[in-house]
Amino acid sequence: MSSRIETHLKRCQPGWSLPGEFYSDLVIYESDLEQVWRRGWLFAGHACEIAQPGDYFTLEVDRDSIIVTRADSGEIHALHNVCRHRGSLICSEPAGHVRRLVCPYHQWTYGLDGKLLACRGMQEDLDKSQFSLQRVELREVEGLIFISLARDPAPFESAQETLAPLLRPQGFRRAKVARAVDYLVQANWKLVWENNRECYHCNVNHPQYIKANFDHFNADDTTPRIKAEMNEVVARSEAKWAATGLAPTHKQAGMTTFPDAERNIWFSANRTPLVEGWVSESMDGQAVAPLMGNYQASDVGTLRMRTLPNFWNHSSCDHAVSTRLLPAGPQRTAIRVWWLVDEKAVEGRDYDLKKLMPFWQLTSEQDWQICERQQRGVNSSAYRPGPYSTFKEYNVDSFVRWYLKVVSDA
Amino acid sequence: MSSRIETHLKRCQPGWSLPGEFYSDLVIYESDLEQVWRRGWLFAGHACEIAQPGDYFTLEVDRDSIIVTRADSGEIHALHNVCRHRGSLICSEPAGHVRRLVCPYHQWTYGLDGKLLACRGMQEDLDKSQFSLQRVELREVEGLIFISLARDPAPFESAQETLAPLLRPQGFRRAKVARAVDYLVQANWKLVWENNRECYHCNVNHPQYIKANFDHFNADDTTPRIKAEMNEVVARSEAKWAATGLAPTHKQAGMTTFPDAERNIWFSANRTPLVEGWVSESMDGQAVAPLMGNYQASDVGTLRMRTLPNFWNHSSCDHAVSTRLLPAGPQRTAIRVWWLVDEKAVEGRDYDLKKLMPFWQLTSEQDWQICERQQRGVNSSAYRPGPYSTFKEYNVDSFVRWYLKVVSDA
Amino acid sequence: MSSRIETHLKRCQPGWSLPGEFYSDLVIYESDLEQVWRRGWLFAGHACEIAQPGDYFTLEVDRDSIIVTRADSGEIHALHNVCRHRGSLICSEPAGHVRRLVCPYHQWTYGLDGKLLACRGMQEDLDKSQFSLQRVELREVEGLIFISLARDPAPFESAQETLAPLLRPQGFRRAKVARAVDYLVQANWKLVWENNRECYHCNVNHPQYIKANFDHFNADDTTPRIKAEMNEVVARSEAKWAATGLAPTHKQAGMTTFPDAERNIWFSANRTPLVEGWVSESMDGQAVAPLMGNYQASDVGTLRMRTLPNFWNHSSCDHAVSTRLLPAGPQRTAIRVWWLVDEKAVEGRDYDLKKLMPFWQLTSEQDWQICERQQRGVNSSAYRPGPYSTFKEYNVDSFVRWYLKVVSDA
Repeated sequence: MSSRIETHLKRCQPGWSLPGEFYSDLVIYESDLEQVWRRGWLFAGHACEIAQPGDYFTLEVDRDSIIVTRADSGEIHALHNVCRHRGSLICSEPAGHVRRLVCPYHQWTYGLDGKLLACRGMQEDLDKSQFSLQRVELREVEGLIFISLARDPAPFESAQETLAPLLRPQGFRRAKVARAVDYLVQANWKLVWENNRECYHCNVNHPQYIKANFDHFNADDTTPRIKAEMNEVVARSEAKWAATGLAPTHKQAGMTTFPDAERNIWFSANRTPLVEGWVSESMDGQAVAPLMGNYQASDVGTLRMRTLPNFWNHSSCDHAVSTRLLPAGPQRTAIRVWWLVDEKAVEGRDYDLKKLMPFWQLTSEQDWQICERQQRGVNSSAYRPGPYSTFKEYNVDSFVRWYLKVVSDA
Repeated sequence: MSSRIETHLKRCQPGWSLPGEFYSDLVIYESDLEQVWRRGWLFAGHACEIAQPGDYFTLEVDRDSIIVTRADSGEIHALHNVCRHRGSLICSEPAGHVRRLVCPYHQWTYGLDGKLLACRGMQEDLDKSQFSLQRVELREVEGLIFISLARDPAPFESAQETLAPLLRPQGFRRAKVARAVDYLVQANWKLVWENNRECYHCNVNHPQYIKANFDHFNADDTTPRIKAEMNEVVARSEAKWAATGLAPTHKQAGMTTFPDAERNIWFSANRTPLVEGWVSESMDGQAVAPLMGNYQASDVGTLRMRTLPNFWNHSSCDHAVSTRLLPAGPQRTAIRVWWLVDEKAVEGRDYDLKKLMPFWQLTSEQDWQICERQQRGVNSSAYRPGPYSTFKEYNVDSFVRWYLKVVSDA
Repeated sequence: MSSRIETHLKRCQPGWSLPGEFYSDLVIYESDLEQVWRRGWLFAGHACEIAQPGDYFTLEVDRDSIIVTRADSGEIHALHNVCRHRGSLICSEPAGHVRRLVCPYHQWTYGLDGKLLACRGMQEDLDKSQFSLQRVELREVEGLIFISLARDPAPFESAQETLAPLLRPQGFRRAKVARAVDYLVQANWKLVWENNRECYHCNVNHPQYIKANFDHFNADDTTPRIKAEMNEVVARSEAKWAATGLAPTHKQAGMTTFPDAERNIWFSANRTPLVEGWVSESMDGQAVAPLMGNYQASDVGTLRMRTLPNFWNHSSCDHAVSTRLLPAGPQRTAIRVWWLVDEKAVEGRDYDLKKLMPFWQLTSEQDWQICERQQRGVNSSAYRPGPYSTFKEYNVDSFVRWYLKVVSDA
């Protein structure tokens, strides 16, 4: 760790927001890339986006471009999108279908697993085995693809074990993307996370979201009547879910102790009830698509997941919404939001984008605006760290502690 | 003062323009922000823009956003536009009307004087008195609002005493903004000032301006006939003004010894005659709006003011034009030009923007183009400081000396 | 040479592409400006663009603007486009016609040779002889203008001697510009050169170019039949050219040993046959304009030139295409492509832009796209230098060796 970063770290105080330079300084941003983004497990996309051998998609982690392919064997690979000859980008499109990865510059040709197959025109003694595309570590959990740019990434097993049973009923492998929307948000990636980690801002900013959910209620402002209603809904839901095999949620309803860098907890998932009468995170609470995965009934609440540093998902019985962050500068985050439905659902017949999308499109865009406004404020020379609410922002503090531990350990 | 700045300062020579790095180097720009912009008195806007309690406007000094409000007491306040909770910008609009300053993120609520009134959701032991919005020093002189970002700003009394009697007859407190235009000029703020501080460039560049004024005539190029005409106009005007109580201008006609960092002179004002037959800085010299302030007749010449680092104003009998500079990068200056008329004047009946605006809109835009062309030239590795005309550019030299003294003193 | 650059240079290996920082690092870019662009001979433009006294054009070498003028004597001058008074740009237009160079700010007036003629308003003791526009070294070779920003540039004689006899028959002095197109390519200038220095990429990327030329055939992939055909065309062409006085090409057909920093070879030219039946680099190989220069017949192949760091030209019997590179940032190159024809040719009667331009417009734009894709790839943290083909990329390696020698010598 550079001593410059160390000086900044000393200025951070538990229970208070980060000093301003953490959201704009180029040296800290480069350190974030190195310590967080090139070491952790990043959500890349959905396996169902590359269902057929030869399908691929690309993603950009700041200036690093990655190709994710499905090989003929059905296996999924992640490869640096950089030709080993003179460094040209190989795939310029966000997604596509190819038989081989052919560099457009001099037609060096790689297999879908990155192996160099041909480089016509090169000297004959060139050892092709030394010029495969650089591999990126990849893990799939029930249809979600995670990659790590690290040579020696942290173990993934614990995440796999925790997430797989919770994810399985949602059927991500048998899903399809109904639509994806890209945003370039003018805010540091950490501001986007801090926003995600509390519902203190929900009451005023998310009129749609709070109609469906309980999480804007906290210990300090929940009336006995609401508290009783919540307890009843939770008890009823958990009993029903246990009966239908959705059991692992039992002990994890509500906000979990995520994240925790000491215990290497960068992932979490839980199932939460929706409010009475709602079966989906849609504008009116009614289902907007056919049941997904293994679900037999619509009363499954929402499955929620989050993995640091770049993913969260809210899934209802009928659709799932994934959000992926990618850093694109000290004050810029590239965000993609996907809406997924069952693979057999047909647009126009089984679902309508106008009904499927608004709940999370509005909620997401409300958050991006908040983050951009906060970025402008923390850029001020007058900004000073402020105190977190112990009732409502303990999870933001957990995120900040996780982040500081990760960059301090480097 | 950093030693890097010191090295640059040593390269500066009296009577010669500044070395190129003063107009583009990021370290010098940051030093300018610190020593000039966060220490001096900045013109913020007009009191008449926030006539009613609850009115506010915002301004940006580089990355610092400031709110100027009128409280219920009628008092004006300037506050950092940064929530004390997590740093969000509070007001995103350039101007508006509110009862309280409510942060859009978590609804922390501040009074119009910046005092924290409510922060629902925070721990009860939070001492609200410690979380007021950070105050910015503010002074009002006859309807002109000045702010200082310094904790311990320079005294303002001398500026107040000098400017108030000269400003009073113009009636800025009883004025209204007819129109304001914003420019983002691709030039360092000092180039904009240097351009303002001489009329050597006027003959060719300002065909409208030189029809109305005398200041493009200098000791070296004024014929005896013109000199006589000027003397006569000045004598006649001063006599008349003395009789009608506009006396303070007597000894200050023409360019004054402004600025002077040794004597802390960063402000100046004077009244100057217009050419024979002109009563207003308009395209044809005729009045374009009703008389302002205390004026009983149109023959009051022009009242001119300037305050460093960011304000000048030319006021005729019928309208006033204010110009405010704000730094927006080493090679960018955000400039606003306001046209003000008497508060009772009605557009369409008493004035017409098409007649009110062109004189100063053309003159201003001619100057911005000059500054942008100069910026491109001084960026060249071949640029070398050149000599100022002792006849025509002594005020530019004064400005440069003022600037160098201010940054050296730091 | 700064020690930081030295560290980078040590990472370079003969036969392998450069490390990524050479294409994006600001310190290396500034070093390139200093060692390559402000020391070498740069192609500026064509003498025929400023045929009349008073004609001028400007060009930008990064942040340095240069004016090239034709004086009343007919002589050509290059001058820094920066007024000696306060540094304003003098000429804002890319080209024009003037009697004197008059600074738009205060009308300091310079001769077309840069001599200060008038500075009305300045003190009388100002020694005008000390305030000429700063001169830029200039050489003309047969209608091609080269400049050097160095105070003490490298000798030009050897380039003059080599290029002049080869250029003469093309008649650049009696040419005219039919059209010029400007591009801002998002790639480091060295990537553009590396692309230019090999035809390994031609087969797939340049369908038009390979129909006309032989240079995509290399030792490793030329069949005996094609080899025999090439030999026959070369022998026949050389015999004919010798007979018509185009002799100097004899020993220089094909790729030459250009460049070579040890022997100070930054220029080269040669004449090459086109394929059977083609007389011009046009879409169908037929002439698209009248014969240029001294040519008596169309069977003259193509005259090709290249000078480092910024020029190449392909000339057919009937038209010539010049390409000029100028650095505009670590990842940006400003490129102009000119199409020239005989000065007496009349558009619409003697040539049609729709037939004249596509061959090189398509080929050029194909290359710019390649370079931009390569820039994105070499920006990746995963990019590593790769091996050059000894069959096809020896000239790229020569370019890289030339570059490294030039920046190491500094």
